[in-house]
Amino acid sequence: MSDSIVISIDAMGGDHGPAVAVPGIALALERLGGRKVRFLLFGDQALIEAELARAPAARAACDIRHTDKVITSDEKAAQALRRGKGSSLWNTVEAVKEGEANAALSGGNTGALMAISKLLLRMNGGLDRPAIVASWPTLRGVTAVLDVGANIESDAAQLVEFAIMGEAFYAAVHGAERPTVGLLNVGSEEQKGHEEVREANRILREAGINIDYRGFVEGDDIAKGTVDVVVTDGFSGNIALKTAEGTARFVRSVMRDAFTSSLQAKIGAMIAAPALRKMRDRLDPSSVNGGPLLGLNGIVVKSHGGADARGYANAICIAADLASSGYAAQIDRNLKQLAAAMPGQGPSDGSAPEPLETSQ
Amino acid sequence: MSDSIVISIDAMGGDHGPAVAVPGIALALERLGGRKVRFLLFGDQALIEAELARAPAARAACDIRHTDKVITSDEKAAQALRRGKGSSLWNTVEAVKEGEANAALSGGNTGALMAISKLLLRMNGGLDRPAIVASWPTLRGVTAVLDVGANIESDAAQLVEFAIMGEAFYAAVHGAERPTVGLLNVGSEEQKGHEEVREANRILREAGINIDYRGFVEGDDIAKGTVDVVVTDGFSGNIALKTAEGTARFVRSVMRDAFTSSLQAKIGAMIAAPALRKMRDRLDPSSVNGGPLLGLNGIVVKSHGGADARGYANAICIAADLASSGYAAQIDRNLKQLAAAMPGQGPSDGSAPEPLETSQ
Repeated sequence: MSDSIVISIDAMGGDHGPAVAVPGIALALERLGGRKVRFLLFGDQALIEAELARAPAARAACDIRHTDKVITSDEKAAQALRRGKGSSLWNTVEAVKEGEANAALSGGNTGALMAISKLLLRMNGGLDRPAIVASWPTLRGVTAVLDVGANIESDAAQLVEFAIMGEAFYAAVHGAERPTVGLLNVGSEEQKGHEEVREANRILREAGINIDYRGFVEGDDIAKGTVDVVVTDGFSGNIALKTAEGTARFVRSVMRDAFTSSLQAKIGAMIAAPALRKMRDRLDPSSVNGGPLLGLNGIVVKSHGGADARGYANAICIAADLASSGYAAQIDRNLKQLAAAMPGQGPSDGSAPEPLETSQ
Repeated sequence: MSDSIVISIDAMGGDHGPAVAVPGIALALERLGGRKVRFLLFGDQALIEAELARAPAARAACDIRHTDKVITSDEKAAQALRRGKGSSLWNTVEAVKEGEANAALSGGNTGALMAISKLLLRMNGGLDRPAIVASWPTLRGVTAVLDVGANIESDAAQLVEFAIMGEAFYAAVHGAERPTVGLLNVGSEEQKGHEEVREANRILREAGINIDYRGFVEGDDIAKGTVDVVVTDGFSGNIALKTAEGTARFVRSVMRDAFTSSLQAKIGAMIAAPALRKMRDRLDPSSVNGGPLLGLNGIVVKSHGGADARGYANAICIAADLASSGYAAQIDRNLKQLAAAMPGQGPSDGSAPEPLETSQ
């Protein structure tokens, strides 16, 4: 790799394939300004070329690697592992493993992306499963919420891992020295919630992990920015994320209705137009698209399958930011603390990571 | 009871007790216009009187029943059942059981309210556990979401019950002839989600229950109004509800920032003021406050513990609407269909309801 960042792209992933990925790349290049970023696009060469023909700036920054094979959105993870080799998604992740790319991006099948990433890149020593983290705009800046969909069910040990991964991610990407962490629940009292959250709460309070853990938080604490990192299982996290997106879209629609409801309102809107534009940008749901898969030996970012070009561009910028940060070192530090505090407890027993595939 | 509706009020429930309940009653009386509604307030007589002294219109519609005893928000449900007799919450529910009130309202401890309501009022024949339903403003009107916090974990049979209760509620309260129902999940494909939602999906599709079931929906479908009734477990439902409230508050705050960011924006806002006011009302989080506990032989409504007077008034209006609707009959119809379609399956085996307490 040269001194520029290389991002591998699963051009066939998501609902719109290259028709969103390529315009997304073009937009991202504008936003990334002077930074040197190149793209390695995996997928149907003819389809990708057709899109690139309409985006000359993107064309110059892209190389294409043809493959016919795709993983569909309804394929199960186990199936994708068995049959996915050589697909656009597989090759996109493999480019990171092979050192051809600094980060991988896919809008494809989440389960398949997670399973293939785990197989090819392996988990960071001691961690059990990846988690997807969303960067949520709040009243006080940005809150990182994880897991938002990599795992359907999570036990207490996994929730604790999410806390460690999320804290390290936040420190590395947002430059916070000591991010605060909360556990999502249906109330703030200690006895609230199901067994997994109560047990995770106990470990986070008592295990001597050196993170600034603040206890339970509720759904409305996310947008308040009560803590920097909100930890939850992938089922609730995914529902929270999509519910917030839906709510933001609903509100924008109500706003549009209001400002077109009368001539007087239209005039007011015209005068306030610059402020309204700024507000719309701040509320754009595409600005939260792009969820890194934390815990892997390598950077993989998931884009929402239905994302538009603006959302896709946002995911690219997150991948680029992460590629030039040092969050892996931060996680190592935290895991060593957990292992020292709780020898033998959970997956973080301080053992060496599994050996890499012999194919390396 | 006379021909007016009587609502019993746990005046000590919630973060603010009578300081919110009484102004809430005053506001509700304005909104209910000509309808005859009276209130039976349970709690500390002196505190309640002090609030009523400031609200003469409410004073005339209220009777007070003094009790010193309160159930705190950190009390466990089992504890509340053992020791709660005679408390403001207990007496509020008991007033419905004794036929003194048509509906009960409390902003107190959710677990205690559910347990005491279940003990005193018993479940509607065949149903297992109550669910709290939220009425969610959407692009197409209102969506009912349940459970939003009565149960922490729900198995497939309970999710199916929630679907039946929610459908009946929607038909009775919103006058829809054939409400559509969806099951909240992290994707719309059949293989997505954990075992409970997949099994509930199978039962709803195959058991021949006569409801218009549309399969899985995602978090963003709630605000879209994709279906009339969204079914979920109480953990995810509570998180979704509070996340949406938080998002709506965040958006309102961003709006306020935008319209005060420059002189030009302020002038625009002044001109568009009537439209902005209408929009703010539509987005007011207090407009979704008030969750009926479905499945009981009697009407009990939960108000958010942190609700303000506007939110409390909204919960009162929901209690009043429900008291004059016929949704119990609708549930009976659906449960008979489930029992006929699946004899012996789940709690809905067509057996007679449990005998009532001997104290009745």
